[in-house]
Amino acid sequence: MVALLPKLAINCDRLDRSLAELAKIGKLPNGGVCRLAFSEEDIQARQLVTTWMLEAGMSVRSDAVGNIIGTYAGTETGSAALATGSHIDTVPVGGRYDGCLGVVAGIEVARVLQENQIRLRHPFEVIVFSDEENSVIGCKAIAGNAPTDPERYRRKDGTSIQECLKNVGGDWDKLHTAKRDRSEIAAFVELHVEQGGVLEAWNKQIGVVTGIVGQYRYMVQIVGRPNHAGTTPMNMRKDALVAASQLVLAINRLGLETIGDQVATVGHMTVSPNGTNVVPALVNLSIDLRDLSEDNLQYLITEIEKEAVAIAASTGTEITFDLKLYVQPTLAKPTLMATIADVCKKLDLSYDYLPSRAGHDAQEIGRFTDMAMIFVPSLNGISHSEEEYTSPEQCALGAEVLLQTILAIDKSY
Amino acid sequence: MVALLPKLAINCDRLDRSLAELAKIGKLPNGGVCRLAFSEEDIQARQLVTTWMLEAGMSVRSDAVGNIIGTYAGTETGSAALATGSHIDTVPVGGRYDGCLGVVAGIEVARVLQENQIRLRHPFEVIVFSDEENSVIGCKAIAGNAPTDPERYRRKDGTSIQECLKNVGGDWDKLHTAKRDRSEIAAFVELHVEQGGVLEAWNKQIGVVTGIVGQYRYMVQIVGRPNHAGTTPMNMRKDALVAASQLVLAINRLGLETIGDQVATVGHMTVSPNGTNVVPALVNLSIDLRDLSEDNLQYLITEIEKEAVAIAASTGTEITFDLKLYVQPTLAKPTLMATIADVCKKLDLSYDYLPSRAGHDAQEIGRFTDMAMIFVPSLNGISHSEEEYTSPEQCALGAEVLLQTILAIDKSY
Repeated sequence: MVALLPKLAINCDRLDRSLAELAKIGKLPNGGVCRLAFSEEDIQARQLVTTWMLEAGMSVRSDAVGNIIGTYAGTETGSAALATGSHIDTVPVGGRYDGCLGVVAGIEVARVLQENQIRLRHPFEVIVFSDEENSVIGCKAIAGNAPTDPERYRRKDGTSIQECLKNVGGDWDKLHTAKRDRSEIAAFVELHVEQGGVLEAWNKQIGVVTGIVGQYRYMVQIVGRPNHAGTTPMNMRKDALVAASQLVLAINRLGLETIGDQVATVGHMTVSPNGTNVVPALVNLSIDLRDLSEDNLQYLITEIEKEAVAIAASTGTEITFDLKLYVQPTLAKPTLMATIADVCKKLDLSYDYLPSRAGHDAQEIGRFTDMAMIFVPSLNGISHSEEEYTSPEQCALGAEVLLQTILAIDKSY
Repeated sequence: MVALLPKLAINCDRLDRSLAELAKIGKLPNGGVCRLAFSEEDIQARQLVTTWMLEAGMSVRSDAVGNIIGTYAGTETGSAALATGSHIDTVPVGGRYDGCLGVVAGIEVARVLQENQIRLRHPFEVIVFSDEENSVIGCKAIAGNAPTDPERYRRKDGTSIQECLKNVGGDWDKLHTAKRDRSEIAAFVELHVEQGGVLEAWNKQIGVVTGIVGQYRYMVQIVGRPNHAGTTPMNMRKDALVAASQLVLAINRLGLETIGDQVATVGHMTVSPNGTNVVPALVNLSIDLRDLSEDNLQYLITEIEKEAVAIAASTGTEITFDLKLYVQPTLAKPTLMATIADVCKKLDLSYDYLPSRAGHDAQEIGRFTDMAMIFVPSLNGISHSEEEYTSPEQCALGAEVLLQTILAIDKSY
């Protein structure tokens, strides 16, 4: 039946109109979107995508954490689903593509199947995950990895997770019922904007994601000695900012020169007392390390700690590390990557392989079943910004690759 | 008549009691003092030192900016004064020695002269300079260098300089009348605590100050590009903090390795947007350069700017410098330094030469007449702190050197 489809079956205009309609909910002045999870805007957007799913011939249910699961029924009873999806919540000043493209493209796939009267062997699911931009509770609950302490989820405005979930038809007390396994979802393929500038720099239309990087985040404290910047000779100082600068450059050098796909960033730094005429006594800084390879992450941490010991000794400072966040890397399923690459070849699209260095819902889903991701380019690599942009054609090509991949794996799974 | 004095004529107990009594005005819980210029506490302290001056046989007047000038009359009519002095205002959390020692020791010198019935050839002046810790209006007005825009002096609480001066018996409209010249003050010798750790490190009792350093202060802006710390590969970044760290280390290296007595400090730094997962887009930092040699300061600035150009090019950032403060260095008069050194030898005190890297009233006075400074050690190099401490014996030795220096130069001037 696949042969009956035109080469490009996705309706580019319809996809773009849907993205635009969704972007009206929580619209910001300069084309961006503010649609925080569990907000009024989120609830309104959930209603819109639910309507679209129903119109595309899907049955729709919502689980205990408010994940919306649209199912386009398959022909083989008892078969595990082939799933796609992403999220429709945004950061406070976000764009219209991050998350939304994956959801809308999933629905567009269902629309194409419906209008071409195609039934897959497997059920085809489009999942809208709850709160990807903050607690990541949606995908974590499905993976069975959601923390069970409700205080971990409390919003900045004080709202409890119980209330948040109730607002979207969920039920905190039934958190565990959201868990699923590979007997229910055989494979998960997420389409997403890259949120970085690699595809643009490489001039590629499609990115085949090799995995979603693991992440270590540390807060580092460097204690020196406050002294008068005028009266304290250079060789009698314990300058915490000099030590911090050495550490920043060591981290940057390891990030640049280590063989691997790592990124290493010091994004946050505060200096105390921060006076123009006082030798810095205290610096706090963050380290953010990401890589697909857990071994390489361990190597980087070991090297950074070695550098810190040497820097502390030579500057007379004390340097301590505090691990704040650890996320395990998730590798994409090679057979799924190969299928996506084959689809690109058949569609005559340029593509290349790259890791995702941002987190995605697929990272959690990939912990219990086969996972892959399709990236489309972000203009100037910008995301989490009102300037986020991916052209309608690029969005449609991504959706086409998603459609053809689902059609292909419906045979192999 | 000098021969009639005992080897150590200064009354150590009396000096210490006077310091303690002055420290009661604006007393802080842990032994420190808060006595801001022109405050109620400042006015009370001015009354106390005026009383002490009168008791020591001095005539006392106050000028248009509230400088208190105590004069112990000399024997030769029309002779220019030999002067000493310092300030009695403090930083918000200050100690009892910074400034006060110079004033109280000056009065103690007059007391010794009085009780030994000694008259010098020259009038001997003790000057209490107004507001050394903030606007430095006192010494600047005497040097004829005080800015004439009243807005430059407005206090944080909104009080105008007119009101401040009125409160201490001054008159803003007569600012220019405070100016003096070398026909009135032949030499000025200021005793002060070091406020640094050099004398302590060298184990010396007395510091002979070679001059008061000049100062350049810049604010530097480094503009990079904000990017997602996860999704932006290392080689596609314009990381403002990496550039800033390189600049901090270049400045520190130049400060350490350049042949000279310079100090070079980055004390202030802010990072924006300062998120753990965002590549820094903007860094603002301060540069504070001090040295006795204007040539060396110029050399350092040129080298730092060269480094900045290279760093901007290699990191893809833009770096701009904004000069915020320039103070010209003031050298001590070599003959006065030699006299102080001779006095130390005669008193069998250990001493060495060092520049003052903090500003002092003597810096302005040295612009129009011969100037020298005597330093005594600060415990652990600490100043502008409740922990500021110099022992009663060290204070008395400093006062003794001041006394003997005044006696010596009374013959040579």
